[in-house]
Amino acid sequence: MILIVTPNPALDLTYTVPTFRRHRSNRVAEVAAQAGGKGVNVARVLTALGRTNRCVLPLGGPTGAAVEADLQAAGLTHTPVRIAGETRRTVAVVDTSDATMLNEPGPELAPEEWAALLAEVDRQLPAAGVLVLSGSLPRGLPADAYADLVTLAHRHAVPCVLDADGPALTAALAAGPTVVKPNAAELTAATGIADVPAAATALLARGAGAVLASLGPDGLLAVDRDGAWRCTPPAAVTGNPTGAGDSVVAALAAGLAGHAGWPAILPDAVALSAATVLAPRAGEFDLAAYRHFRAAATAHAVPAPRPGS
Amino acid sequence: MILIVTPNPALDLTYTVPTFRRHRSNRVAEVAAQAGGKGVNVARVLTALGRTNRCVLPLGGPTGAAVEADLQAAGLTHTPVRIAGETRRTVAVVDTSDATMLNEPGPELAPEEWAALLAEVDRQLPAAGVLVLSGSLPRGLPADAYADLVTLAHRHAVPCVLDADGPALTAALAAGPTVVKPNAAELTAATGIADVPAAATALLARGAGAVLASLGPDGLLAVDRDGAWRCTPPAAVTGNPTGAGDSVVAALAAGLAGHAGWPAILPDAVALSAATVLAPRAGEFDLAAYRHFRAAATAHAVPAPRPGS
Repeated sequence: MILIVTPNPALDLTYTVPTFRRHRSNRVAEVAAQAGGKGVNVARVLTALGRTNRCVLPLGGPTGAAVEADLQAAGLTHTPVRIAGETRRTVAVVDTSDATMLNEPGPELAPEEWAALLAEVDRQLPAAGVLVLSGSLPRGLPADAYADLVTLAHRHAVPCVLDADGPALTAALAAGPTVVKPNAAELTAATGIADVPAAATALLARGAGAVLASLGPDGLLAVDRDGAWRCTPPAAVTGNPTGAGDSVVAALAAGLAGHAGWPAILPDAVALSAATVLAPRAGEFDLAAYRHFRAAATAHAVPAPRPGS
Repeated sequence: MILIVTPNPALDLTYTVPTFRRHRSNRVAEVAAQAGGKGVNVARVLTALGRTNRCVLPLGGPTGAAVEADLQAAGLTHTPVRIAGETRRTVAVVDTSDATMLNEPGPELAPEEWAALLAEVDRQLPAAGVLVLSGSLPRGLPADAYADLVTLAHRHAVPCVLDADGPALTAALAAGPTVVKPNAAELTAATGIADVPAAATALLARGAGAVLASLGPDGLLAVDRDGAWRCTPPAAVTGNPTGAGDSVVAALAAGLAGHAGWPAILPDAVALSAATVLAPRAGEFDLAAYRHFRAAATAHAVPAPRPGS
């Protein structure tokens, strides 16, 4: 079982509006609502792949109830941790030209609510093959909150994937996450280093066991203490890149659960990510394209970046 | 007790955003959520005035639960009618220059859900002094749905105020609502007549017992078969006009419940409406201003408009 923690889930609302006019009244033609947050996307992809998984996530208020109802409807196994605050919403207003995003700040988590989440993860870890930590941290938590979960995973000898950015990423490195998955912009923001291999090496020096850097159309670079591997997509894809990184995490978690190495994980992750770009929504992917891309993609060892280069 | 039917209530979300950018990602600084819909505004004002009232409203889904939680928190007496669909949301994005509105279409009501609402109103009417019908009709109902409620009120010999526009207004006229409360634009839309007194007279001819036309800063005009009355605000006010019409309905309902005539109702309604413009949100009013305006306002009989003029 792959255990997924989504500390700041959301109810993602999509409003279709013919032409969105600012500072006017807009009639919404169509409303779609689904459970969101990066970890929930990971769970959707794993579930579609037939990989057993469980989401642990704080939920509160009527919006939390709406998230839970959608998780149930989607057949996603989950364990809610009840909180006093109300789960956040995101609103994507989609018109014929582009999307406008409105992101609520979300609830503050009290220390005892975070402790309850840790206790729940502690209860689930004995049955877990991998722990996935995904997305932003809710307000009210210290920047190093993810370090608590990384430490728990170590205590249970369960490998741990961290997909976060900014202080939520950097403050967790010292606890030694098995793999972190930043994109190029997040790597630069975390290290101040523009060069991707050099920045990845800097994260290793700060405690990460491995770095899987997602580079958009350029595919993936994996760096660990044994070396470095690259894999590029077998074809250029255009579509909706939202959720492509979550599919990388899903493939990575599935690979780690099966004790696969980079030569197996990278082509799978590249293929799943590209197939996700072809699907209209985060958490969905084009299955035929995934199979096709996976057959066509291969990983190559590349020279390990020198520290501090 | 004043019985208020809000057939299409909403959860009104207000998002404060420093500068709202279309086709970009916007971080919401502050989220406010409250139960909305014109009838709920009427109930808030009546409750603040100490007038016993009860809202009957269809509610469904987690958003319906959020509306109900807010009605409870606000101390508004209500009877929900459970529906399968989900209660709608409205989103007002407020930045430093103006507001952008997003209005969800709301649920469709099934015939048996409307029948359940009628049955609930039928149960409550023996205890009611006035029936208020307020706001848009949900999808799935015929345009003359309000006529069912007007007819029920007649059966219980309870006066009935209808505040709606378009077909929801015009198709209910034949059932003989005691008073309808259009604004000038709604009067013209309903009749094709630009002249307010003439348009009001046309609604009388189509079945309304009386017409109370709200004319913004020009105050109110009441027309019935006995004559016509005018009342203008004692002072010009600037602020948020949202909910000003709902306060007119609240004052009208309170007046009808106390068997008041136009000379008493009009100054009260003008004062409450102007005091509502001074308050930041619909359903709220400035109590000191209300008292001051009510003392200063007076209604005057005006020549009855000639039919068809």
